[in-house]
Amino acid sequence: MKKSAKSPRKISKWVFPFGGKDTAGNGGMKELLGGKGANLAEMAKLGMPVPPGFTITTEACNYYYDNKQKMPDQLVEQAERALASVEKIMKCGFGDPENPLLLSIRSGARKSMPGMMETVLNVGLTDVTREGLIRKTDNPHFVYDSQRRLIQMYADVVMEKGTGRQVNGDGIRKKLDAELEALKKKRGVEFDRDLSADDLKQLVVIYKKKVKEEMGVEFPEDPNVQLWNAVKAVFASWNGDRAIAYRKIEAIPHNWGTAVNVQAMVFGNMGDTSATGVGFSRNPATGDKGFYGEWLPNAQGEDVVAGIRTPNPVNTFSQNNQNAKLQTLADAMPHLYKELTGYVNKLEKHFHDMLDIEFTIQEDKLWMLQCRVGKRTGPAAMKMALNMLSEKLINKFESINRVSPAQLEELLHPILDPKSEKSATILGKGLPAGPGGACGQAVFTASAAVAWKKEGKDVILVREETNPEDVEGMRAAEGILTARGGMTSHAALVARGWGKCCIVGAGELEIHADQKILIANGKKISEGDWISLNGTHGNIYEGKLGMMKAAEDNPEFDKFMKLCDGVRRLKIRTNADTPEDAAKARAFGAEGIGLFRTEHMFYGKGSEQPLFLLRKMIMAKTTEDRIAALNELYPFVKADVKATLAAMSGLPVTIRTLDPPLHEFVPKDHEDRVKMAESLKITSAAFDKRAEELVENNPMMGHRGVRLSITYPEITEMQLRAIFEASVELTREGKKPIPEIMFPLVGHERELKHEMEIAHRVHAEVCQRLKVKNIPHTLGTMIEVPRACLTADKIAQEAEFFSFGTNDLTQMTFGFSRDDIGSFVPAYTTKRILPADPFQTIDQSGVGVLMEMAIQKGRKVKKDLKIGICGEHGGEPRSVIFCHNAGLNYVSCSPFRVPVARLAAAQAVIQEKKK
Amino acid sequence: MKKSAKSPRKISKWVFPFGGKDTAGNGGMKELLGGKGANLAEMAKLGMPVPPGFTITTEACNYYYDNKQKMPDQLVEQAERALASVEKIMKCGFGDPENPLLLSIRSGARKSMPGMMETVLNVGLTDVTREGLIRKTDNPHFVYDSQRRLIQMYADVVMEKGTGRQVNGDGIRKKLDAELEALKKKRGVEFDRDLSADDLKQLVVIYKKKVKEEMGVEFPEDPNVQLWNAVKAVFASWNGDRAIAYRKIEAIPHNWGTAVNVQAMVFGNMGDTSATGVGFSRNPATGDKGFYGEWLPNAQGEDVVAGIRTPNPVNTFSQNNQNAKLQTLADAMPHLYKELTGYVNKLEKHFHDMLDIEFTIQEDKLWMLQCRVGKRTGPAAMKMALNMLSEKLINKFESINRVSPAQLEELLHPILDPKSEKSATILGKGLPAGPGGACGQAVFTASAAVAWKKEGKDVILVREETNPEDVEGMRAAEGILTARGGMTSHAALVARGWGKCCIVGAGELEIHADQKILIANGKKISEGDWISLNGTHGNIYEGKLGMMKAAEDNPEFDKFMKLCDGVRRLKIRTNADTPEDAAKARAFGAEGIGLFRTEHMFYGKGSEQPLFLLRKMIMAKTTEDRIAALNELYPFVKADVKATLAAMSGLPVTIRTLDPPLHEFVPKDHEDRVKMAESLKITSAAFDKRAEELVENNPMMGHRGVRLSITYPEITEMQLRAIFEASVELTREGKKPIPEIMFPLVGHERELKHEMEIAHRVHAEVCQRLKVKNIPHTLGTMIEVPRACLTADKIAQEAEFFSFGTNDLTQMTFGFSRDDIGSFVPAYTTKRILPADPFQTIDQSGVGVLMEMAIQKGRKVKKDLKIGICGEHGGEPRSVIFCHNAGLNYVSCSPFRVPVARLAAAQAVIQEKKK
Repeated sequence: MKKSAKSPRKISKWVFPFGGKDTAGNGGMKELLGGKGANLAEMAKLGMPVPPGFTITTEACNYYYDNKQKMPDQLVEQAERALASVEKIMKCGFGDPENPLLLSIRSGARKSMPGMMETVLNVGLTDVTREGLIRKTDNPHFVYDSQRRLIQMYADVVMEKGTGRQVNGDGIRKKLDAELEALKKKRGVEFDRDLSADDLKQLVVIYKKKVKEEMGVEFPEDPNVQLWNAVKAVFASWNGDRAIAYRKIEAIPHNWGTAVNVQAMVFGNMGDTSATGVGFSRNPATGDKGFYGEWLPNAQGEDVVAGIRTPNPVNTFSQNNQNAKLQTLADAMPHLYKELTGYVNKLEKHFHDMLDIEFTIQEDKLWMLQCRVGKRTGPAAMKMALNMLSEKLINKFESINRVSPAQLEELLHPILDPKSEKSATILGKGLPAGPGGACGQAVFTASAAVAWKKEGKDVILVREETNPEDVEGMRAAEGILTARGGMTSHAALVARGWGKCCIVGAGELEIHADQKILIANGKKISEGDWISLNGTHGNIYEGKLGMMKAAEDNPEFDKFMKLCDGVRRLKIRTNADTPEDAAKARAFGAEGIGLFRTEHMFYGKGSEQPLFLLRKMIMAKTTEDRIAALNELYPFVKADVKATLAAMSGLPVTIRTLDPPLHEFVPKDHEDRVKMAESLKITSAAFDKRAEELVENNPMMGHRGVRLSITYPEITEMQLRAIFEASVELTREGKKPIPEIMFPLVGHERELKHEMEIAHRVHAEVCQRLKVKNIPHTLGTMIEVPRACLTADKIAQEAEFFSFGTNDLTQMTFGFSRDDIGSFVPAYTTKRILPADPFQTIDQSGVGVLMEMAIQKGRKVKKDLKIGICGEHGGEPRSVIFCHNAGLNYVSCSPFRVPVARLAAAQAVIQEKKK
Repeated sequence: MKKSAKSPRKISKWVFPFGGKDTAGNGGMKELLGGKGANLAEMAKLGMPVPPGFTITTEACNYYYDNKQKMPDQLVEQAERALASVEKIMKCGFGDPENPLLLSIRSGARKSMPGMMETVLNVGLTDVTREGLIRKTDNPHFVYDSQRRLIQMYADVVMEKGTGRQVNGDGIRKKLDAELEALKKKRGVEFDRDLSADDLKQLVVIYKKKVKEEMGVEFPEDPNVQLWNAVKAVFASWNGDRAIAYRKIEAIPHNWGTAVNVQAMVFGNMGDTSATGVGFSRNPATGDKGFYGEWLPNAQGEDVVAGIRTPNPVNTFSQNNQNAKLQTLADAMPHLYKELTGYVNKLEKHFHDMLDIEFTIQEDKLWMLQCRVGKRTGPAAMKMALNMLSEKLINKFESINRVSPAQLEELLHPILDPKSEKSATILGKGLPAGPGGACGQAVFTASAAVAWKKEGKDVILVREETNPEDVEGMRAAEGILTARGGMTSHAALVARGWGKCCIVGAGELEIHADQKILIANGKKISEGDWISLNGTHGNIYEGKLGMMKAAEDNPEFDKFMKLCDGVRRLKIRTNADTPEDAAKARAFGAEGIGLFRTEHMFYGKGSEQPLFLLRKMIMAKTTEDRIAALNELYPFVKADVKATLAAMSGLPVTIRTLDPPLHEFVPKDHEDRVKMAESLKITSAAFDKRAEELVENNPMMGHRGVRLSITYPEITEMQLRAIFEASVELTREGKKPIPEIMFPLVGHERELKHEMEIAHRVHAEVCQRLKVKNIPHTLGTMIEVPRACLTADKIAQEAEFFSFGTNDLTQMTFGFSRDDIGSFVPAYTTKRILPADPFQTIDQSGVGVLMEMAIQKGRKVKKDLKIGICGEHGGEPRSVIFCHNAGLNYVSCSPFRVPVARLAAAQAVIQEKKK
């Protein structure tokens, strides 16, 4: 169902009831009812005790936005009919002074956006219905508390955020909180629940007065006004800044819209036989099998999620350091616990996946509030995928699809080196909410995290608790540490979704955000001091600890990767410039090197001598001098090529000839220049002049790549000689070198022809000199200039293979210099002109069109032309899928991204099968 | 007949006889027989006295090169049969000791390459046949002279150039010349002809000895060896360095090959009843009607062409300052002159064009040696085209095709300002060989001309006489001046072909190339001194004179242009940034402005104040400061736009919003920076920091064009306001402004949408403020980024017009930075990797493919989408024809190129009709 409410199709059904016998929706209707609504309908159909209600569709939301914030005509009528049915099931009436029905109004997008969307509870409670409810429940404390909660939520969500009305300072929610705290202080009590019913009654009056004062209007006493304003406020929250920011990060389309679930309230805060809780059908952090959850007696759901109180474990399986002493639900209410686990098991069997559920116990009756597929960490996702496969709950393809590339990346995320952990100073412990390890400098606000990150610093964001306003800062941080909250708190959910290292609920920490300090275990950590987190175990350390990779020596990881390998068709190679990288990538499953950059040897350690010789070659004034310098350079180049060919023996190694503009290698530093000039026996002025001549206005489009070889063919000759001789030597040593020689930046077939002629000549020379008949190799080209795509048929007549260089291709297709986009591309994404940074994921409608053209033209000439990609995109999952669909033979990416590419390539096959 | 000898078609006929009754070819067979061969056959068919001979085809030449320099098997046999026929007609025998036939061996390419290809005369003359010929002619002087000429030519063309054999020093030709000069000096005579027969006999012995000494082999005495080696030498000359260089300049394909014409020799040097000459059926310099030619009594053809003797005029119509006192052919040999003019008239009627003929009179008998379409100057081409049209010799389309764009450009070439000529010091007079005027610094070698030109200097190449080795230097010079030679000398032919200003045969000049001085009229001109040439009248002046345009106030020019306008469909606009340019272009026939660059107003005179304000805007730290600076800038921008809209009232003006990277405008000079910082009230350091931030690695692909407007929409707003307000004001003043607003560098449809929204908003604001309902305008985009072409269908949904920016499109399609290609593109053309500089003529197989894609996609969405081009290519003839064929609505080019574009657009229609 791709069409939104904009579609001309006539829509007649805006409301879908659930909970009674007339449940209209089902679990497959997520696009229309949102995840929550569809699952409520599905649960009701499975016979579970779901509080009755109805779902207003996502189409209604889109209609609302497309029609100047007007509700569809039939909507209210349909909702009133559904509401009557709810009243009938719950045996009470909405706005009935004697026997009032209260409603919850909740958002429900197709995809969960934790904490981003709004909820209003206790709708229908007024000074009039309150009295009826008190009479009915005989629990004034609960009723006043519900009313003051309604006022606070409604004022915040509907009156402030829903209308965009500005309230000075912190906003109305915090202002009302301050009134609560003031009263608690006055009464000398610690918890809200310790306030008396009269206190709460007084608070209702105080709240209403404050609302009128701050907002300029009265809190509405008409239940229907409350209901419909709350629905509109949920719609409004879809287009709130936070929600938009979240969707941008998660790549959720803005036109999906949200559904709204209107549901009968049930109460977990009606005394000690009431409770509320959340849980997962398996452990979302580890993937271990067993019901895993948290609950709070005498509380409403938001108390658990908000992370203000540390919740109890539902069972011993759910115990951890923080909650081990708190009573389990299994102990406290064994019969209800049994009923609950029955439902959880049934749900998992029904949905074939790990589920995240919410429940409430109202006066000894269990209500299932919602269920949805649960978020999980990468390691948990992989363990569940493998376990469910062996349990035969899912098949091979589903198993592969159960781990997202981002989750797999988590497994590849670094962890703290256990050795360095042993000797480190521990600052405290918290809940292990996000996996892996992280080191960074402590910062105490989200904005500081963003700012420091921009300066290239690694930071740990330290907060009392996080809220949705912190999302950007959390994104920027290496790790997140909070003093409050549980495994299902905002920080934990968000961090886990991203696979980011996170520790929550570290209650021993004293965080003074205003002074930018953290006091723990007698140590004071100021802003900028280094700390380290073990997000897998919840340990917090002082200082910057050593790090290492998690996926190494993980048999489950290998098993899962083999599963993927059995499905994928795309070959995965790696970009590696050293024997060490090559070996590492081979361990990660790389099936060859897709890009070996000959220039790498001039960077980094041990490169002084070759770099000096390269510079000598560059500064040469005559061909003779250049050849002399190249001859001196030759042994280094050959040794370098040989070592990598040896490390990849039996696998292909694509060796690219020299690519960067020569002046990149000219020393910038004055002293270096003087030294260089001396050793070249030229004057410093002569050196500077020559260096000046090499400078270019737009080096990216200047004298580089194959162009160097057109002007200085002797450079290419030297490199080819090195490759051929190294191959012969290796073969004689019993190795199997498979060099694939690749020429960069070709835009015209005659450039390539020029290179081929050099290659054939040098090959013949080396064969003769070393007395061999033939040195196996293939000759191909990068496709990275738009013109190469446009004339790929002609280029294919020369080339034995193509390899897309999508970095340059993206630069030239857009006319974006990757080094210079910082001044405008942020504005492009903010203004939604570009959906994503095209240097991260392939721009399919521009660059992708050129690629498809090149593939089609190339294969028209050579049916089986081998085509790969060696740009950064080769390891980006969406791009990998594009490459699979486009018919590439392989992708090549950095060693670390090889497993992700293996997974994405397998998922591409599964996606293809579905079509 | 596109196929060459490479074609698999079986070729059986390599030789085409002509001259007798069995003439096999005809004038339509230029591709196979070359221009000369085809015309000889045609002339023979017309019954003219052509010395008999045969043509060896261009296919034979290609076969020769494709088969390791081996002749086709049947060739020799066919040639021998044809030779026998020649012997029969001429009643003598090749190699016959008593009655020998002598042959000329001449190249004949499809297109004339004057002086580039080789010729050998008198082939068949040996010590043995010589004696027979002396007996037969009783003219030992002529026979010995012919033999020494054969030895000199053969040694040069066949033995030295044809084999690549190296001779020390100047080469064999000059060494033999030195022997001739030495003998003349010894005998105390001035002219060759004053040497006695015995002297010449002695010279034959000296020449042969010298040849053996220098070349290491004997001069061959076998006529057949002479014949076939001469044929091979002609083939070899096709691939000589000079010929290749010439073909590159003239864009002649290298695979055309040359034919070889073997023809019975006739002699113009057999005494006073013999003569030789060349002529044109109309004056090739002015186009005036009448037989125009030169002749020399008792001479061979090469004496006329070589320019060593100043030739006589054939008639009074051909008289000029230099030859007015010499006898005309009409006076000297009236009956033969009458016969000759009869043939000339017949040929012109037959060929419907001006012809270039060569003739020889051997002992009172006229022989027509060759005829071909004659080269002419631009003014002559235009005059002939118009005259022949009114004579009904050709039709309208032929008339238009008779003037090449390059010839038209000549008309637009500057001439010396007649006023400044009046007061100038005359150095001397020569023959007016190349049209127009030129000023430059005197240089005395071709290499100096090239070197000085590279440094940006204008030079006049001053030579005793020019030779093919000087071609590059002639190309580099503004004008050419020689002391020797006639109107058909090498210098004259080459210069005229290029439409370059040239004076030849200025015999009064003393040129001392070794000392780099020229002495004339008592003045000494040293290297680097300025001189000026009037190539139309042959006057040479001291100093740098004023220049002006030739096409202005030329009624024929207007007539011809109107002829073109009646045929073409493509509209021609101009790129103009000032009211002055606009007015000039309107005079040249521009039908609107295709590119008005708003940034121009910050360059050049009178720009100090706006530039200062622009800089203030650029350096602004906040949006507020930027808007304040923009408001100050506003009146200047509006005045600027308004003036050009006024100048083009009633015609469309495409106004492009600000395009260049902002840092281009930041002052580079330290003092300027200090001043600027002071006036901005910031520190110099703060200024430098901000300026530093604006610097980019690859500004061509950086923050410019529409990107500036995404980040700083207020800049665009200001410009749009200026355009709209100026339009309203002009309308109120009775003018008719037609602004077409164009956004640069769009690569994604949403960029354009962003601009359209700004434009709609500003339009509405201005309408409201100035109380008008609507301000007529259109909104469109440049198509200059590859991605724009790829997504042109989406962009067309927003745009009201497209305009190709082929400069940037070429840069990005190739990945060539136009500023940086100097270091490698010369190697690209030298190595024949690129056929032409893609910044001069559109790269049709790369950039052109993108353009066609954009047009097709754009028009699929909007059938009548207006599409133009405003890159430099818009005035380049081949590109204009491409644009016509691609379906563009208009091209826009610099004012000066507008007439050329009008012509090319008309020729495109004619080309289309032919298909």
